[in-house]
Amino acid sequence: MDPDSEPADIDVSSAVERLAGRVRRTPVIFPGPGAFGVAKELALKLECLQHAGSFKVRGSFNNALAAELPDSGLIAASGGNHGVAVAHVARSLGIGAEVFVPGVSSAVKVDRIRALGATVHVVGEVYDDAQAACDERAAQTHALNIHPYDASLTVAGQATLGVELLQQVDEIDTVVVAVGGGGLAAGLAAALPFNVRVLCVEPETSRCLSAAIEAGRPVQVDVGGVAADSLGAKTIGSVPWKLLADRVESVVVPDEAIVTARRRLWDDARVVAEHGGATALAAVTSGIVEFDPDERTVVVVCGSNTDPRDLLD
Amino acid sequence: MDPDSEPADIDVSSAVERLAGRVRRTPVIFPGPGAFGVAKELALKLECLQHAGSFKVRGSFNNALAAELPDSGLIAASGGNHGVAVAHVARSLGIGAEVFVPGVSSAVKVDRIRALGATVHVVGEVYDDAQAACDERAAQTHALNIHPYDASLTVAGQATLGVELLQQVDEIDTVVVAVGGGGLAAGLAAALPFNVRVLCVEPETSRCLSAAIEAGRPVQVDVGGVAADSLGAKTIGSVPWKLLADRVESVVVPDEAIVTARRRLWDDARVVAEHGGATALAAVTSGIVEFDPDERTVVVVCGSNTDPRDLLD
Repeated sequence: MDPDSEPADIDVSSAVERLAGRVRRTPVIFPGPGAFGVAKELALKLECLQHAGSFKVRGSFNNALAAELPDSGLIAASGGNHGVAVAHVARSLGIGAEVFVPGVSSAVKVDRIRALGATVHVVGEVYDDAQAACDERAAQTHALNIHPYDASLTVAGQATLGVELLQQVDEIDTVVVAVGGGGLAAGLAAALPFNVRVLCVEPETSRCLSAAIEAGRPVQVDVGGVAADSLGAKTIGSVPWKLLADRVESVVVPDEAIVTARRRLWDDARVVAEHGGATALAAVTSGIVEFDPDERTVVVVCGSNTDPRDLLD
Repeated sequence: MDPDSEPADIDVSSAVERLAGRVRRTPVIFPGPGAFGVAKELALKLECLQHAGSFKVRGSFNNALAAELPDSGLIAASGGNHGVAVAHVARSLGIGAEVFVPGVSSAVKVDRIRALGATVHVVGEVYDDAQAACDERAAQTHALNIHPYDASLTVAGQATLGVELLQQVDEIDTVVVAVGGGGLAAGLAAALPFNVRVLCVEPETSRCLSAAIEAGRPVQVDVGGVAADSLGAKTIGSVPWKLLADRVESVVVPDEAIVTARRRLWDDARVVAEHGGATALAAVTSGIVEFDPDERTVVVVCGSNTDPRDLLD
């Protein structure tokens, strides 16, 4: 069967049940018109305050709690955030974890994974290199290999963020979200009603979704830039792609716009995000996307595994 | 008339009306049992995400909006946060502001006041020195002199934080709050039902409330320590004292406990607070106060005008 003809089976309801009491219901704030230099009122979903510092813990818990857990525990590859999340889940469940990260992963992320008790392997340059090494190791150990984005259970876990949003904000018109491998955006596409616009934002330097949309199919891109350790997937995941291809809009932003948005998040709202976490906001603050003043827009701030010491540099 | 026999007239309802649309409804988060090394579930009121980075904007707006504004604008003395708030209010209302801060005020605070367009005068060592200079100048200019804590309108403005809390958290048993001059704690005492315990926390190095409680009246103390630029009032305000004397409990915490609590706020909840903003949490994380596991406890994180670069030092 052609996998592209099969709609992804994303069981959001089961994920909501599994994650009850396991993840934080992260707050939505309304910083007020004028914040970040944007005239319109924005809502910010502060998923950066989630356990393990990003939305990734949602998908990781959903995988682990749906499985019969092997004695060898959990295994995962990650730019970093998914690794922190898997380490957090393993510790919560009292099992072991091995995490493969690439050289581009920040020291803050590697340190956090270790501090949570997981074994860390630094392999290759970018995320895809670490994933290959992880898959090879998983075949030996039979640990539960939790994919950071290209798995239905992962996407369904991330979708619970969308379910929360529907409970927290009335009459959402647009949700703006950063895209790496596409897991969170696909989860939102699955969770939100068809008439909510899902606006996907990628760095110009790591743009596998916009490249896929141009090509009409997933294609490989080079990855780099300030957000490479959270958004640096070379190819959009095939599970996310099925949910995103005909559903979402996509834009890219330059790295400078991401750096500026991250700084303004701190200056105007006292929120510390990593560069990937500020990428969605960058589409708004840079003026690259224009919004109707009356449109109800929610921006997802998706991660904060960062070193705050470089915030004011 | 003996001022001590007159109950302070704190008009919380009018403050709520005046502040509508002017201040942020800051979120309450539940980081989960185990966060910050504390077994019990805590609620955190993230007032550190408020406009101008602290609760001070509530009292400042309440003063300014209750007054006929003079052409000479606003004037205030402050350890720093109240100055940032007054500068924010003045800019919002399109008027000028002069702010007097002591040498102990952090560069971050002074820079923020200037960035908001106010004129800054650095006078003396601690807040009380700046207040004396401010009062002298106000007598000349007839600008609206907004006291940081010792005024009914200021306390009523801060009380709106308590009104929000009652809407956000059911069945609160205890609210834990840091005390400098006592404005916020007094506002909470005014806003919250009598059966909610208001637990006031001061640094050992700046403890004007606990000294007043010991003496049975406001007395002067020396001030210093890591939180001196937000909690460093030499004497508890007389208006706050009327509300606090028979109503609240008071504890002091060492500076090291404040530093640790600030770091744990970042590590476990990705919230950046200034030292004064982490002081309430320090009473919990240090174990200095013990709480019943079933007690519903809200900790106010009251300020974030800080330099995040020193967070991981």
